[in-house]
This record gives sequence, structure tokens and C-alpha cells, in this order.
Amino acid sequence: MKTFSSRTVTVVKTGGAILEDQKQIAQLLDGFCRLSNPKVLVHGGGRTATRIATQLGVESRMIDGRRITGKEMLDVVTMVYGGLTNKNLVAALQARQCNALGLTGADLNLIAARRRPPVPVDYGFVGDVEAVNAGMLAALLEMEIVPIIAPLTHDNQGALLNTNADTIASSVACALARLAMVNLIFLFEKPGVLADATDEGSLLPSLNNSLYQELKVSKQVHSGMIPKLDNCFNALRAGVNSVRITGSFELTGGTTIRL
Amino acid sequence: MKTFSSRTVTVVKTGGAILEDQKQIAQLLDGFCRLSNPKVLVHGGGRTATRIATQLGVESRMIDGRRITGKEMLDVVTMVYGGLTNKNLVAALQARQCNALGLTGADLNLIAARRRPPVPVDYGFVGDVEAVNAGMLAALLEMEIVPIIAPLTHDNQGALLNTNADTIASSVACALARLAMVNLIFLFEKPGVLADATDEGSLLPSLNNSLYQELKVSKQVHSGMIPKLDNCFNALRAGVNSVRITGSFELTGGTTIRL
Repeated sequence: MKTFSSRTVTVVKTGGAILEDQKQIAQLLDGFCRLSNPKVLVHGGGRTATRIATQLGVESRMIDGRRITGKEMLDVVTMVYGGLTNKNLVAALQARQCNALGLTGADLNLIAARRRPPVPVDYGFVGDVEAVNAGMLAALLEMEIVPIIAPLTHDNQGALLNTNADTIASSVACALARLAMVNLIFLFEKPGVLADATDEGSLLPSLNNSLYQELKVSKQVHSGMIPKLDNCFNALRAGVNSVRITGSFELTGGTTIRL
Repeated sequence: MKTFSSRTVTVVKTGGAILEDQKQIAQLLDGFCRLSNPKVLVHGGGRTATRIATQLGVESRMIDGRRITGKEMLDVVTMVYGGLTNKNLVAALQARQCNALGLTGADLNLIAARRRPPVPVDYGFVGDVEAVNAGMLAALLEMEIVPIIAPLTHDNQGALLNTNADTIASSVACALARLAMVNLIFLFEKPGVLADATDEGSLLPSLNNSLYQELKVSKQVHSGMIPKLDNCFNALRAGVNSVRITGSFELTGGTTIRL
């Protein structure tokens, strides 16, 4: 067996509407299973969390696309991200002979975070990543285990914290990049980064930082795409080998992000 | 480091009212942390599941103390057992420097089950254990990882299944007993097995099979205690070294079960 460090790790992040549609989940998992090991899947689940929260009478409040996570909402995201979404993905992958292991950042102390300060905005139980346990992740990958990571971290004081799934994916990719070559793929609801968000034909096959800055100034790239692309560029700066945003369940094509 | 097979594994099962009370959870986890490695914690969470199900408008139906698990209830127990209960225990253990890893039977294909036939009673998505992946559990224990197991299994076809936590605990103990010495401890709401269920002073320090049969005939042991004790005797017959039912958070005392 080749050792972990001689192989390229693929980190895939998925979320959004894909996780609300059984057919799209199956396509995602089929594509993910065709990737060779070692690989990691990071998932969101915000739409399901919002739906379950509504059923439980817990109000969903967002500021700049980020969820305010009070104690009741923390319980909801713990149930949905750590339980419903994560364990159904794991069972579906095991049925495909992929040796999936569902994880939050609390499991194996995988991702420690600091609760975000309440000023200027009190996001509640939201964590900013402090440390990824890359050694433990590498040990799992050496065992041909496929980590499936929910967007929850912990503060090492017993509290779970809600953390953005894009941030988890790039943090995990950056930490593993210190040990091996890492390709990071964001599976997106659109075909990739579009020069015109309303025109799926305007896909940019690649995006470098200078073009990104231009598109921000011209407001062709805006709102939720900005933190997503910042995550991509940060990952490249931290040593991740390649970053791609794609809408293809084959996890090919889309937009390649370059420095 | 001593190898796994030269050490005694402790499997602790908890559930019931204990998991609904933060103070009792803390006592349980303090006691569990004082046990030396290797060790495994198996938990229930039925009362929390019933509470969340009620909030979601999902009816809880039990037959002979076993939960009927329709699709909506399966989602509830996946959220509660796999998410809320499991991940909060993991975070609380990590805060105590115990390297906990939350698992369901789907993770790492740890516990495969067969969906119970719908005749004579259709329990829905309920699984009877078919195989425990003892080799993988042993590999985790060798790494000084502490598995925290939720009472969910899978059918290897992509479906999660609800499985009684006592059964999970004894199945795990029996599987590990083929590889190492195993002590199985059921942490119970009462001090142990009582000769008179209404008198906590009537604790039996030990219970063998012939006394058990007598207590069943005289109806001093009845209802929920019967499957619990059957699990205990089955574990001893399958090679588990010792089985104890105790109400002490120190995981000592109580009733020792003997063949």
C-alpha cells in the first residue's frame, strides 16, 4: 500500500439544494465513490436545518448569509448536520462499498474552534476554526477510511459550535496540505463561477485573483460568492494544490481557481 | 504500549432518565472517564426522541416497550441518537480529555442488521443485529480511541435501522469477547436488580440463572427487566467475562450476573 503522504487527497464540499433531493444525493455519491482514495466529504445541510427548525417552532435568523445559532438552533443543527444528514450520507456510502465514517469537529477532537465574540454581531454558538487535527485525519485516511464531516466544531469545553461548511472544507484541505498534495472541490448548484450570475453560459473556466478583484469591483461577483471565493484563494495561499468550483456530479469541469 | 488483546475492554451502556438530566450526564461521564482504556460507551436516548417526536407532531407508539419506527420516527431517532445525544456526549468527553468518537452502526460498517420481518408485528425500520465489525472496533481501541455508540444500525442497502441499545451493548461486548477479555456494565436507574422492584433495599448483589428463572416464575422480575437480563445471560454465554447492572455512576457495586 502506498502511504498517505505519497498520494493526493481529494476534499469535496457539498451542500445547498443538492442535499434536499434524493436523486441529486445519489448522483453526488456515485461521483464521489468514483474518486480514488484518499478522499474526504464535507457537507452542509442548512436548508434541512431551516425546515426542521420551522417544524419545531425555532425561528431561523440569518445575517449576511450566516445563521444566528441560539441554544435551540444549536440543538437543531446538531440533530440535522450531525445526525440526519451525516448518518444518511454514511449509510448511502456504505451501501456503495465506500468505508464512510461520519464525523463532527468534536469527534476525535478533529476541529477545535473558538466561539465567535458577540461584538459586533452575536451569532450565538458559532465557531471560528482554531485547529484541525490533521494527524488524526491522516491516520484515518491511511486506514482507507473515508471521513464524512458535518459542519460542527467544538470548543474543547464541552460545547458544540456551528461552523460554515465551506470554511470547514478549506480548513481541512489546508491542514492536510501540510502532509500531502490536496485537491479541493466545491460542488455547487451552478456550473461554476459565472461572469453573469443570470447566464449559465457565462461560465469562467478559470479565475485568478486579479480577475476576481475586477469582478468584485464590477459587482458581477457579489454576496454569498465572496466568502466562498475568499475561502478558495485562502486555501491556495495555504498550500492546497488545486481548487475547483463545479456543478458537475462527476466533480470535473467548472471553474479552476488560480492565484 | 500493551496490545489491545492483552487488556480488558469495558463496555458501558447507559440510557433512560440519566440522559435527560445534565447533572446525571456529568456524573456518568466523570465515572466513565475514570475507567482505564480500552472502553466503549453505548447510549440510548428514547426519552429525548419521544420528546422531540412530540414537538414535531410524530406519534410515539410502543409495543412491549419497543418503539414502532416509521419513516418519520426513523428520522427523529437518527437526529436524536446519532446527532443530539451522541455528539453532546462526545463533546463533553473531549472536554474531559477522553478521545471520544461518536458512531452509529453505519459508520465504518460497524453493525450490520437485518430489518425485522413485518410479521407478527411490523416494527418498521427496526434492525436485528447480524454482524459487528469487531476488527474495526479493535483497531480504534488500539489507537486509544473511545467509541461512543448510538443505537442505530444499517442494512448495507443504505437504510439506517433503529436497534435497542441494550442489544447493541451486548452484541458489541460479545463480538469483542472473541478478541479480548470484556466486562459489560449496564448503568441503570435503579441500584441493580431488586428482589422487590418497589424496594431499593432489596438489591441482589448477584443473580444466577436459576434464581433468575425463579424470580420470573414468581413475577418479581417482569416486563422490561426480562429482555435486559436475557441480554446479560446471552452475553455471558457468548464469552463476555463479567456482566454487572448498577445504578452507581462509579460503575461499581450493583448486581453481578452469573451463569
